[in-house]
Amino acid sequence: MSPGPMPQKGKFMFKQRLFTPGPTPVPEEVLLELARPMFHHRTNEYRKMLEQVTKDLQYVMGTTQDVFTITGSGSAAMEASVACVVAAGEKMISVRGGKFGERWSELGVAFGAKVVNLDIEWGLPVTAQQIADALKANPDTVAVYITQCETSTATVCDVEAIAKVVAQTPALLVVDGISSIGALPFKMDAWGVDIAVTGSQKALMLPAGLAFIACSAKAWKKISTTKGHAYYLDLKAYKKALTPPEWDNPYTPANLMVRAAMKALSMIKAEGIEKIWAETHKRAEAIRAAARALGLVVYSKAPSDSVTAILVPALAEGKTGDDLAKTMTKDYGVKPAGGQGKLKGKIIRFTTMGYTDSWDILAAVGALECSLAKSGYKVEFGAGVAAAMKVLAS
Amino acid sequence: MSPGPMPQKGKFMFKQRLFTPGPTPVPEEVLLELARPMFHHRTNEYRKMLEQVTKDLQYVMGTTQDVFTITGSGSAAMEASVACVVAAGEKMISVRGGKFGERWSELGVAFGAKVVNLDIEWGLPVTAQQIADALKANPDTVAVYITQCETSTATVCDVEAIAKVVAQTPALLVVDGISSIGALPFKMDAWGVDIAVTGSQKALMLPAGLAFIACSAKAWKKISTTKGHAYYLDLKAYKKALTPPEWDNPYTPANLMVRAAMKALSMIKAEGIEKIWAETHKRAEAIRAAARALGLVVYSKAPSDSVTAILVPALAEGKTGDDLAKTMTKDYGVKPAGGQGKLKGKIIRFTTMGYTDSWDILAAVGALECSLAKSGYKVEFGAGVAAAMKVLAS
Repeated sequence: MSPGPMPQKGKFMFKQRLFTPGPTPVPEEVLLELARPMFHHRTNEYRKMLEQVTKDLQYVMGTTQDVFTITGSGSAAMEASVACVVAAGEKMISVRGGKFGERWSELGVAFGAKVVNLDIEWGLPVTAQQIADALKANPDTVAVYITQCETSTATVCDVEAIAKVVAQTPALLVVDGISSIGALPFKMDAWGVDIAVTGSQKALMLPAGLAFIACSAKAWKKISTTKGHAYYLDLKAYKKALTPPEWDNPYTPANLMVRAAMKALSMIKAEGIEKIWAETHKRAEAIRAAARALGLVVYSKAPSDSVTAILVPALAEGKTGDDLAKTMTKDYGVKPAGGQGKLKGKIIRFTTMGYTDSWDILAAVGALECSLAKSGYKVEFGAGVAAAMKVLAS
Repeated sequence: MSPGPMPQKGKFMFKQRLFTPGPTPVPEEVLLELARPMFHHRTNEYRKMLEQVTKDLQYVMGTTQDVFTITGSGSAAMEASVACVVAAGEKMISVRGGKFGERWSELGVAFGAKVVNLDIEWGLPVTAQQIADALKANPDTVAVYITQCETSTATVCDVEAIAKVVAQTPALLVVDGISSIGALPFKMDAWGVDIAVTGSQKALMLPAGLAFIACSAKAWKKISTTKGHAYYLDLKAYKKALTPPEWDNPYTPANLMVRAAMKALSMIKAEGIEKIWAETHKRAEAIRAAARALGLVVYSKAPSDSVTAILVPALAEGKTGDDLAKTMTKDYGVKPAGGQGKLKGKIIRFTTMGYTDSWDILAAVGALECSLAKSGYKVEFGAGVAAAMKVLAS
């Protein structure tokens, strides 16, 4: 079928909208912090910034523990939470239900841990019962590694319930919150999470380049008695450097990024984290409703509110989900992510976290309608945006 | 003595000039690259950027080897060059003539290497003969770790001569070029350096947040057969990700920083690296001449052209070099660095690398003259700037 006339991209003014689940859009006010003059980091000016960033991260993560700022990708903080915690030969449980869960296992292998892989069907969440069973079978486990939102499958698990189970054992619970903290409810202290890890380029409305990590008292007990495999990512060095009144990093920090983080976090705090969780939920509900109204299927059985994966329907011959994503990007300026690993070509993913609002969702759904039509899928124009609008206005 | 009327800081317009040896000033054109819209890194747009950055870094470092871009501090790249190279129990020689040389030893200890410390008096360079002797005494050494410019003492060593010595042995030569590459002559391939490490926030006119590393064929041979201690900093993963046509990073990169690096490196390439080396040398000569004209002493016996350390003379009672640096910063807007470790309070340091020009040097010397006078040191106003100007105009 021919889609007929549809919105056309401008030749000289073609507006771009980023819907990848990291990096996500960054507010101009935050980007401009990066463009202000360079300054030195061993100064009171910087210490005050790092203190403010640390306190605001405590608010976002729901903890009174120190939150350390690492210059690096989220994977660097993940490494710190393995290399400083599990000594060679010690046992860890790694939940693998997608690409990022696999990273926990790879880290364990790299540092000589005995890795027990708890494999979960992609698109399903790990349950507290599965964790309880795994811990029962492996009572010598020193830490359980999970992923709150598995970005590759857009699936969320119940961290609170899992934490309750792990808390009854000597094991630590380590949560990859890279694509969830700041978007989904997360209460580190109240839930009893031992180590929480996140990154700058997801819900926190920042570019990539900083990673954040916090540890419970139970975690510190293990870390301080463990012969780890870390120098640059040695959490003990971060703790020593941060201890007030120092508010310092052990190695030269990306200090412009810390200044930008101060701005982004101040916006989040002013808005209120619970309101942000609720709005993120609504946006995810809207995009899921739009997908269903267009006859599409949401991939995950436990969909995350921070990123939504939609199964790609039958398109014109030879066209995959990657082609659909490309059409959205090239012709309509809306950039979703495709699938990774075994989901390559089979899903498209839209972030709903961070600096994304209701009208961005309408834009994404509008572009999806046009791109589906152009790719040979029968679309009733308006069905998606109307369904999204109903949710957004509710 | 009373200094009399001297230039006063503005109340609302107080211009700041950064002379710390990292971070160094960043051109506005480069900062503005950080403020342009966020984009996704798994795109051709990003791959072209990383390809260009890689090629321009090869030009700056004098190598045809891959140059890897790590999201992290310079210390992260230093760690990669230890953790991927020296297996537990293997021997490395670490040259310690200052704070950054000590970091090599700490890294070796952290990863279980047998560390042979070659201690050098602070302010003196390690010599090729000392390296030859150490290698003779330790023929089972797998790598020698040196610092081209030891920032803490502003001392440069003869990397070319040392490389000739190390090349005759099975050992690798690893050079910390963090505060030298891009400022001082450095020819990785021609000199036979095996691993070169640098960071973004020094001569490369960028904010902190990226580190760069390149390895010779001899180094790759060792790396590929070594059971290392690395995941986030695993050079093999970086090599695999970068291999054309991929031009990728193994973990989410600080892609705005890579875009900024493309801009900064294009400026460096357009100017010409040899011209930059020569201009940096002239600026360092100018500041050293100014110091001598003011009756001061340059600290290092082998002064680097990228950073100059000046011994603090006797000041008013109780005043140290840190007070002098503070006066320069607070009253005159010129920010030098003080001394580190055992040199704390005893020296002040000025960078002459990166985005610094002749007139910046006059500003620094002018502020030094005023601050010395204010701190109770007898100054013949104009002696320093005149001496600097003679060199700059030569």
